[in-house]
Amino acid sequence: MLKIYGIPRSRAFRTLWMAKELGLDYENVATDMGKGETRTPEFLALNPAGQVPVVRLVDGGALAQSNAIMLHLAWGTDLIPAEPFDRARMFQWLFWEQYSHEPAIAVLRFQKLYLKKSDEEIGPALPGKCERVLTLMDSHLAAKTYFAGEKLSLADIALVAYTRFAHQAGIDLAGYPNVRLWVHRVEDDLRLEHLV
Amino acid sequence: MLKIYGIPRSRAFRTLWMAKELGLDYENVATDMGKGETRTPEFLALNPAGQVPVVRLVDGGALAQSNAIMLHLAWGTDLIPAEPFDRARMFQWLFWEQYSHEPAIAVLRFQKLYLKKSDEEIGPALPGKCERVLTLMDSHLAAKTYFAGEKLSLADIALVAYTRFAHQAGIDLAGYPNVRLWVHRVEDDLRLEHLV
Repeated sequence: MLKIYGIPRSRAFRTLWMAKELGLDYENVATDMGKGETRTPEFLALNPAGQVPVVRLVDGGALAQSNAIMLHLAWGTDLIPAEPFDRARMFQWLFWEQYSHEPAIAVLRFQKLYLKKSDEEIGPALPGKCERVLTLMDSHLAAKTYFAGEKLSLADIALVAYTRFAHQAGIDLAGYPNVRLWVHRVEDDLRLEHLV
Repeated sequence: MLKIYGIPRSRAFRTLWMAKELGLDYENVATDMGKGETRTPEFLALNPAGQVPVVRLVDGGALAQSNAIMLHLAWGTDLIPAEPFDRARMFQWLFWEQYSHEPAIAVLRFQKLYLKKSDEEIGPALPGKCERVLTLMDSHLAAKTYFAGEKLSLADIALVAYTRFAHQAGIDLAGYPNVRLWVHRVEDDLRLEHLV
């Protein structure tokens, strides 16, 4: 059986959704970074980078990086556009998410929600980065329903993951109306509750 | 004709190699971030994120993110493994490169080479991050010839891009012998000169 290492309130939630969305038979092996469980010799043998999520595939191979895992599990499904340019745009947003979105929104959320840092301790750079990220998304979504092509793709799933928790980073999505509508649209597609 | 925006000494070099490697007919439109050329209205219309590289495809579509561009240009070639697990591993390393490798090696190189910062100004965190990144790569390469499967793939091209300039970040690759051998191997595959 497919084993997914991580806990739902970590980056692993993206992988857990995907497995659920695709109706896969899987087991969630609770692995909590906060408890040092990603630093044990057993875990490091599975993923030397010491990060969740990581999956052990049915044939025994280990795979890390949430977006790579999503691509592997969803290969051949409608979540990866067949049209070459739409597929390329999906990849563009997947890499942008890793390089620009996650280091802004997810990091600010972590500092506020888990490290309980004050606005003063955090400073203005990180919130400014979040604002630029959300402005870019809002502007894209002014003319588009989804991020790649006219249908839900892995780009939306990757981007919605932390965007729908933006309020936990102290960000009001009311300032980004197209983003908020899109979050609701993707939540409906994935049969998830609306959080904001 | 395919238009590649950027300059060879920026992140665009990955895209320029790829176009050359695949024998594509292309034009390099010099766009220098250092001269503010990624902040003009024309450039922002092409890529609202204001980053190079970006390409304008033959049919007019614009595409950003170096790894997404490589995937689009190389789709259907041997640079993307056909075997599903090897392909998944290629994606794992491509996302790892964006999230962990580039923010370490490329950023340290930028601070030393272009901003001319001293070791004191840079502090110990960033060099420590580079050390962990290279140690992880060296350990992977102790048992493997390439990053995904037994052949050159986009993962190697993405990772070698800044690794082969590590000396410009003040890093001596002699401390990472497997990485150094792999850099030479990939340079040979791509008919590039050995830099270190």
